[in-house]
Amino acid sequence: MQKIADVKSANAVLQWDQETYMPPKGASFRGQQISTLSEIAHQMFSDPSLSELLTELSGRQDLSEDQSRNVELTLEDYTKNKKYSSAFVRQMSEQINKTFHSWIEARKQNAFAVYEKDLDALVQLKKEEAEILGYEKHPYNALLDEFEKGATVEMLDKTFGDLLPKLKTILEKINIAVPVDDSFLRQHFPKDKQWNWGMYLIKELGFDFKAGRQDISEHPFSTSFSAKDVRITTRIDEADFGNMTWSCIHETGHALYEQGLLEENYGLPLGEACSYSLHESQSRLWENNVGRSERFWEHYFPKLKAHFPEQFGEVDLLTFYKGINKVAPSLVRTEADEITYHFHVFIRYELEKNLIEGLLTTKDIPAYWNEQYKKWLGVTVPDDKRGCLQDVHWSHGSFGYFPTYSLGSFYAAQFYAQAKKEIPNLENLIKTGDSSTLLSWLRKNIHPFGRKYSSEKLCHKVTAQSLSVEYFLNYVRHKYGSIYRIT
Amino acid sequence: MQKIADVKSANAVLQWDQETYMPPKGASFRGQQISTLSEIAHQMFSDPSLSELLTELSGRQDLSEDQSRNVELTLEDYTKNKKYSSAFVRQMSEQINKTFHSWIEARKQNAFAVYEKDLDALVQLKKEEAEILGYEKHPYNALLDEFEKGATVEMLDKTFGDLLPKLKTILEKINIAVPVDDSFLRQHFPKDKQWNWGMYLIKELGFDFKAGRQDISEHPFSTSFSAKDVRITTRIDEADFGNMTWSCIHETGHALYEQGLLEENYGLPLGEACSYSLHESQSRLWENNVGRSERFWEHYFPKLKAHFPEQFGEVDLLTFYKGINKVAPSLVRTEADEITYHFHVFIRYELEKNLIEGLLTTKDIPAYWNEQYKKWLGVTVPDDKRGCLQDVHWSHGSFGYFPTYSLGSFYAAQFYAQAKKEIPNLENLIKTGDSSTLLSWLRKNIHPFGRKYSSEKLCHKVTAQSLSVEYFLNYVRHKYGSIYRIT
Repeated sequence: MQKIADVKSANAVLQWDQETYMPPKGASFRGQQISTLSEIAHQMFSDPSLSELLTELSGRQDLSEDQSRNVELTLEDYTKNKKYSSAFVRQMSEQINKTFHSWIEARKQNAFAVYEKDLDALVQLKKEEAEILGYEKHPYNALLDEFEKGATVEMLDKTFGDLLPKLKTILEKINIAVPVDDSFLRQHFPKDKQWNWGMYLIKELGFDFKAGRQDISEHPFSTSFSAKDVRITTRIDEADFGNMTWSCIHETGHALYEQGLLEENYGLPLGEACSYSLHESQSRLWENNVGRSERFWEHYFPKLKAHFPEQFGEVDLLTFYKGINKVAPSLVRTEADEITYHFHVFIRYELEKNLIEGLLTTKDIPAYWNEQYKKWLGVTVPDDKRGCLQDVHWSHGSFGYFPTYSLGSFYAAQFYAQAKKEIPNLENLIKTGDSSTLLSWLRKNIHPFGRKYSSEKLCHKVTAQSLSVEYFLNYVRHKYGSIYRIT
Repeated sequence: MQKIADVKSANAVLQWDQETYMPPKGASFRGQQISTLSEIAHQMFSDPSLSELLTELSGRQDLSEDQSRNVELTLEDYTKNKKYSSAFVRQMSEQINKTFHSWIEARKQNAFAVYEKDLDALVQLKKEEAEILGYEKHPYNALLDEFEKGATVEMLDKTFGDLLPKLKTILEKINIAVPVDDSFLRQHFPKDKQWNWGMYLIKELGFDFKAGRQDISEHPFSTSFSAKDVRITTRIDEADFGNMTWSCIHETGHALYEQGLLEENYGLPLGEACSYSLHESQSRLWENNVGRSERFWEHYFPKLKAHFPEQFGEVDLLTFYKGINKVAPSLVRTEADEITYHFHVFIRYELEKNLIEGLLTTKDIPAYWNEQYKKWLGVTVPDDKRGCLQDVHWSHGSFGYFPTYSLGSFYAAQFYAQAKKEIPNLENLIKTGDSSTLLSWLRKNIHPFGRKYSSEKLCHKVTAQSLSVEYFLNYVRHKYGSIYRIT
């Protein structure tokens, strides 16, 4: 399993390089190299002798609890992996590579049409994948399961169905409340100064730069080649302060989780993150529950002012805090506030569900997208770049990924509420710039377990109950009630 | 073969990252990942079905000349590769990784002793490798053959035996001639300004930045993941202008060769560089025959003056030209002039030969090194960092590599003499900043063939005779005769 992890990690290095430093003409051979490594990892994990070994180990009585769990999960993964043929794995990898490059080109030309054909080929492969994996009720369930074991259309329809009307009500109250000013975020913030500020914050949050680094890419992401080498990326918009800072905090949240996995479990399920939504709970907890709180900026705003005296010299803490939490329907998911964000996710979820079911074709995407944005958020999409071309996920073949973002927010709220219970002075600590106590709590309660528990079980273990959107709703009501003076 | 190339290229990406961007704690897992990919590439290339295929292809009459040559060389490589067991390949790769990190640490502590044990383990493996490969007369011949097919102790002893006394005579005349002043090279040259200057030069020489890039590393090197993605690195010494500029030109020479290999031969012998000495002939031709010529700087010195007006404002072209060609026995190979350079190589060659034969142990290295530097160059080595710890090569397992540096200089002189014959106005073109005509000549006569011809045969094809040190001697006599006014 460690050798397979070596190949997968090598592939992750190739992908990291592709999105950070690779020269453009390198793309075609790089795609081929990534496909070959994917295929090799797949073949290694399909080795029949592994099946024998795992079956034998499954029957053994002398394994520790962790060993047994590693065997159980590996056998589960093995059985799933065996369903894919090598040819299919290679075809998928090559199509992902082609689609990714079409997406880059389409964004350059600001034209979805450039991307449509390759995306369609990928959607067809994802449909095929759903059939290969098998599913109950809805083919999209098979794809959801890849990112969040046990997640279903039924469960998500219900969750969004419960939540969105309530968020809509809050949104309507905000719309008629006194507007918040965030114009001070859109001044000129020089690249180098932003970069230095981001690096400072990341260090403050406990990212270990001896076991990781940050670079620049088109779309921020985090990746890991072992718990000792975790990479994050960011992008800088000189005209918008918000663009980089919270992406840095977000990716740091992911990275802190990866750096908190146990080195000795490298290559084993217990050395892998629990699930995508749990991963996202870590990034969102730091980005929002911590990084957009008044407490946090009580400590860091004076430092930010010293770093950008021209831009923030005249801004006071409360104005800053309100500004960075301004709620306003907008076009781009990654720049959305904590309330409207979930409408962005819901639109993508519905779109993917329909695509996979065949109720929608890729050709229909721009029109459908623009219509939904009008319907749910009341905004008019001016072009594809700020519309259906904004996310990289489909170009990575990640259909079923978006819902984990919302689930991540819900888990984050529930975990943070629990941390507050267990660390009575938590909010005061954060006020003094101490985030290490919270990190220690996460390092004790969440990070080291990897996939030992399912999301559901881990949530129970940490908070003594199942996932409940009530924590998120309470958080939102309390926070925005105070900012917008609404009840 | 292309799939094997994918794995090897992936491994080259891992190694590039290791020396440019990888955080320090990533080292241990990275070593493991590199070992695993080496082992996989080795296994793929040991597949018995490949043997059948190659044997069948060898008998086919319907192949083109290039196809036949690809089959012939692949079979040759296959037969050699089969001699290594997977366990040996893995052991070697792991030991190289350990030794590389000991070398880094030993340089930090400036203490050979930190490195000695790992180096010794590696030397034992290289001895074992010589036995595995088999050899005639001297075990070191087996290792030489890895870097320069056909090179032998006999041939090198004769070449160095012929050349060094003649170089020694020139050196003695220089020692009593009017000294050259190069103090203007050792002023303060800010990092960023040097970097920009290097990037400008590299571009001027024809490096395709859409198919490659430059980064910073401890020790400059070039590597390639395909002809469309060629990476070079450099290092910057703010107190010494010479340190970076000619390393940039040198690595660009390597890169221009790699970028000139044919894309369609990716993964095949004809898509690989002819040999290490041929590779080195390209880097040295650009670094020395072009990059240290008066002609070249006639065009670029005014530009350099504009870039560093404070440092070079008062320096005239002739002073600059003489200064950058100053001959003086020194400690560090990579900073040596074109004459003393070959003594540095000879010392390493003798040392390796003795190590592999068992006449010398790794413990003896510092004493032996310092004694030889005293004997051949008359210099006293003050510490290991500027002595036997200066080169990365052994830490990469590259025993038998150094002689190709000298051979490269000799080929470079012979090729450059031929280019002058075939491009009558070559020197005038270079005076006007046109190096593209020379590049075109290399792209026609040397770059596209890959391993189609052996070094020996390619030399014949290009210059109508075998390698002869006379070209190098003539070049040296003419150039330094004029600089130092000696006959």
